[in-house]
Amino acid sequence: MNKCTVGENAEVSKTISESDIYLFAGISGDYNPVHVNRIEAEKSIFGKQIAHGMLVSSLISNVIGMKLPGPGTIYMEQDTNFLKPVYIGDTVTARVMVDEIINEEKGILKLKTQVYNQEKDLVIDGYAIVKYLERKN
Amino acid sequence: MNKCTVGENAEVSKTISESDIYLFAGISGDYNPVHVNRIEAEKSIFGKQIAHGMLVSSLISNVIGMKLPGPGTIYMEQDTNFLKPVYIGDTVTARVMVDEIINEEKGILKLKTQVYNQEKDLVIDGYAIVKYLERKN
Repeated sequence: MNKCTVGENAEVSKTISESDIYLFAGISGDYNPVHVNRIEAEKSIFGKQIAHGMLVSSLISNVIGMKLPGPGTIYMEQDTNFLKPVYIGDTVTARVMVDEIINEEKGILKLKTQVYNQEKDLVIDGYAIVKYLERKN
Repeated sequence: MNKCTVGENAEVSKTISESDIYLFAGISGDYNPVHVNRIEAEKSIFGKQIAHGMLVSSLISNVIGMKLPGPGTIYMEQDTNFLKPVYIGDTVTARVMVDEIINEEKGILKLKTQVYNQEKDLVIDGYAIVKYLERKN
């Protein structure tokens, strides 16, 4: 079995579209006007419509579930700090890095989980605890 | 302005559908087989397809953004512990409770954030830190 090593990292990038925000609003039921109401969002401190924080952080789930450790990973904990807003059209990159091997035998890892925008601003910072039984990728 | 008080709580319930999972997979790009591949999911320790953890936790964002504190809330942090899997057809309830007034003047709160399934099993436990400038609901 391939083991994960400290410092190993993987990432995924995506441009956040208007359709992402409206589909996520439908799934979650989070119709906070700052996400789905252009008029209200323009009056808010953000100045325009922003993506749901959890929509942006779902890209972390992508990297963990698809790449590092990848398929078969069990998500135990995610801590997320929302630092800056993400607007429609922003291109974000979610980066996951192995920070600590908590229990090598059980495959329990602490991952550093961050998301940047196209200006290289850190928009989300945090960590995840995951368990992987078998690494396939 | 209406203030939030410790112990105040709100919730939302939803049955997790197959379409939720497939739409969330499309938005996030998280195509982990345990979510989108029935054959692989049946071979996994879960026995059948499960919802993405962040799809389930998006209901917490719903309660915070829509009810407590509601529209205008700024999401600062979310810590999420994934305790049990959620399957297609499960009906989950996200419950948010004001746990601590961190800074009354700045409207900064610590919220207890939990999700239960229809068996009253706690599937997600955690907390959020939010800031609300003006409470409208």
